[in-house]
Amino acid sequence: MQSTHLREHNLSAVLRALQTAPSPASRAGLATLTQLTKPTVSKLVEELIGAGLVTEGEPIAAGAGRPMVPLRPAAGTLLAIGLEIAADHISCLGIDLTGAELARRTTYHRVAEGTAEDALALAAQLVHEVREEAPELPVVGVTAAIPGRLCPEDGRILSAPGLDWADVPVISRLQELLAPADWPVGAQNDNRLSVLTEIDRRPGESFLYVRGSTGVGGAVVLDGAVLEGAHGWAGEFGHTVVAPDGRQCRCGRRGCLEAYISYLSLVRQAGLSDEVRIEDLVEELARSSSRAEVIGVIGRSLGLAIANALNVLDLSTVVLSGYLAPIAEEITPVVQETVDRHALAAEAGPVAIERADALADPALHGAARAARQPVFDAPGSWIEKER
Amino acid sequence: MQSTHLREHNLSAVLRALQTAPSPASRAGLATLTQLTKPTVSKLVEELIGAGLVTEGEPIAAGAGRPMVPLRPAAGTLLAIGLEIAADHISCLGIDLTGAELARRTTYHRVAEGTAEDALALAAQLVHEVREEAPELPVVGVTAAIPGRLCPEDGRILSAPGLDWADVPVISRLQELLAPADWPVGAQNDNRLSVLTEIDRRPGESFLYVRGSTGVGGAVVLDGAVLEGAHGWAGEFGHTVVAPDGRQCRCGRRGCLEAYISYLSLVRQAGLSDEVRIEDLVEELARSSSRAEVIGVIGRSLGLAIANALNVLDLSTVVLSGYLAPIAEEITPVVQETVDRHALAAEAGPVAIERADALADPALHGAARAARQPVFDAPGSWIEKER
Repeated sequence: MQSTHLREHNLSAVLRALQTAPSPASRAGLATLTQLTKPTVSKLVEELIGAGLVTEGEPIAAGAGRPMVPLRPAAGTLLAIGLEIAADHISCLGIDLTGAELARRTTYHRVAEGTAEDALALAAQLVHEVREEAPELPVVGVTAAIPGRLCPEDGRILSAPGLDWADVPVISRLQELLAPADWPVGAQNDNRLSVLTEIDRRPGESFLYVRGSTGVGGAVVLDGAVLEGAHGWAGEFGHTVVAPDGRQCRCGRRGCLEAYISYLSLVRQAGLSDEVRIEDLVEELARSSSRAEVIGVIGRSLGLAIANALNVLDLSTVVLSGYLAPIAEEITPVVQETVDRHALAAEAGPVAIERADALADPALHGAARAARQPVFDAPGSWIEKER
Repeated sequence: MQSTHLREHNLSAVLRALQTAPSPASRAGLATLTQLTKPTVSKLVEELIGAGLVTEGEPIAAGAGRPMVPLRPAAGTLLAIGLEIAADHISCLGIDLTGAELARRTTYHRVAEGTAEDALALAAQLVHEVREEAPELPVVGVTAAIPGRLCPEDGRILSAPGLDWADVPVISRLQELLAPADWPVGAQNDNRLSVLTEIDRRPGESFLYVRGSTGVGGAVVLDGAVLEGAHGWAGEFGHTVVAPDGRQCRCGRRGCLEAYISYLSLVRQAGLSDEVRIEDLVEELARSSSRAEVIGVIGRSLGLAIANALNVLDLSTVVLSGYLAPIAEEITPVVQETVDRHALAAEAGPVAIERADALADPALHGAARAARQPVFDAPGSWIEKER
């Protein structure tokens, strides 16, 4: 048992090192990166090559010594599938071990207007379509990004107000809809999946991640890891109170940040149609009142909620994502002014308010990456299963 | 180098195991607890006994086998000194390796009415008096608990509003005042030291610690460790905004929790003399207005700030300390009602609002324990130094 465990640990260390190395590494380079001996690394690499998880590039001359053979994760040898079920669309993305996109499908569908079953059937259909684009590849699994809170025990959706869902067993229902395939199926909150791209961009860093969408959510990242919390709900930033006894939030509470700055609340406040696309939100709001006023409302509410979170967490970086990213430059002065006024951390130097990577569909990408993760965590089990 | 490091690591593992074991352990028991071999443990134990850090008890008959010799940290063989500089008193406590109190001094002194130099000279005087009660023991160090924020680089006090201190180099000044003794001197925020007792009571748990005092502070504990944050200020709970554009706080901001429920603000709101002792606060407040009203104000402000913190952290336990502990039973219904109304975590089950251990002077005890900690972290270095 011990040696199986050790082998798995070492295979994972080698594969992760190849994933995160800024350029392809040689066997000797991997030995340095993983602190394993060269013979051990060579043996592990042969196994990973044999299983199609690693490929060798063209040898590169290396001075007087033997040429260096660059190694990298293998492209196109497996399929990991991400799903995103959002208020107005369902998307599906297939990636390989390198993160390259193999197939993608999107259906525009107002989830709240139909049943959860409708949406899940559509989602399963998209998964089949993506799978058919690469029918020869083994599937690692399917992970669904859901804008709601999951039950920490069984992963069913407790509530997803933007979808008008309560108590939906997404995982088991998707498993049934995808049968006879018995791929591992998972589900996770969309914000917790979105943040994965930012964690890659900022390895080892600590930051508060705030994502504006149909709701407002986020994640707390400490030293490169997402803070879980007691129920996997840490960073549920949208229900911070910014106005005691304030506006009614669709979660049933009063004065939540989300009641002021979510897509849905902004649209309703401005009397706009909810046909307005989220990308066009601020533009459309500016037509109905003054743009500066809209920016002011968003910036002040957000700034107060951020300051309160920073006073508890003592972080010095905030990353704005979702619909907040494209307007980050405009809202930052207002957010910054409010944060500087209320956050203790500001006394030690300015809190950095930054915009997230412009990557479209971060939740969808995060879901595909989460589906792929077991191969990096336990390559030995994956190899065993596919043998 | 490697083997010195390993020896230190193992000595520390053995000493910590003896500290945390619920009852005295034998050498065989230590081997199980530390996952070291029995011969290694025996060698390490001999070294710790030789250095006066561990003592053997009377052998206990153990069935048919050899009698078991119980081991425990040695009492009375070293002195660790804690200081607390509070708004109205300065205290000094000397403990040994077992945590037993060897000496204690308290001077009532209104720190804000004198200079920082006055207070530090008094503190140094108390340290000398405590030291004279055990002049034969080697001193591990002195740690001061200060109700303020420390500079993360050099440990000077950036601001301690309750003491009316700004930019006070406590560590270097205490070192000068204690010369020619060259004991290691440290300083830490009083709330971060107070929480140490609770961490011992709740090993490995996660909780939000809230301490009401002249100010309001706290700490975030994740899996048994205090969250540091970027500047060591995580858990500075008192400056969470509970009323946007609300009451002026002595920190210069508006609407902070501290402006509503700290000792100082409650005394001022009620027009009481600040001669009222903090233990008598709620009693005195009740005389000037109705007790239920006072409890209501404290409970609602506190509940809102706690709910906001929980929404970011997703913790399910809150521990009330300081002047909040003795009134915990009374305020809990109001706090609980507000927390349940605003914290998402409440959807998963009730958030536990608990009172801290009734230990008097938790900051002072925490300071002494922090001064003692190097012996547990690096017993080998301590033995080397004292040889």
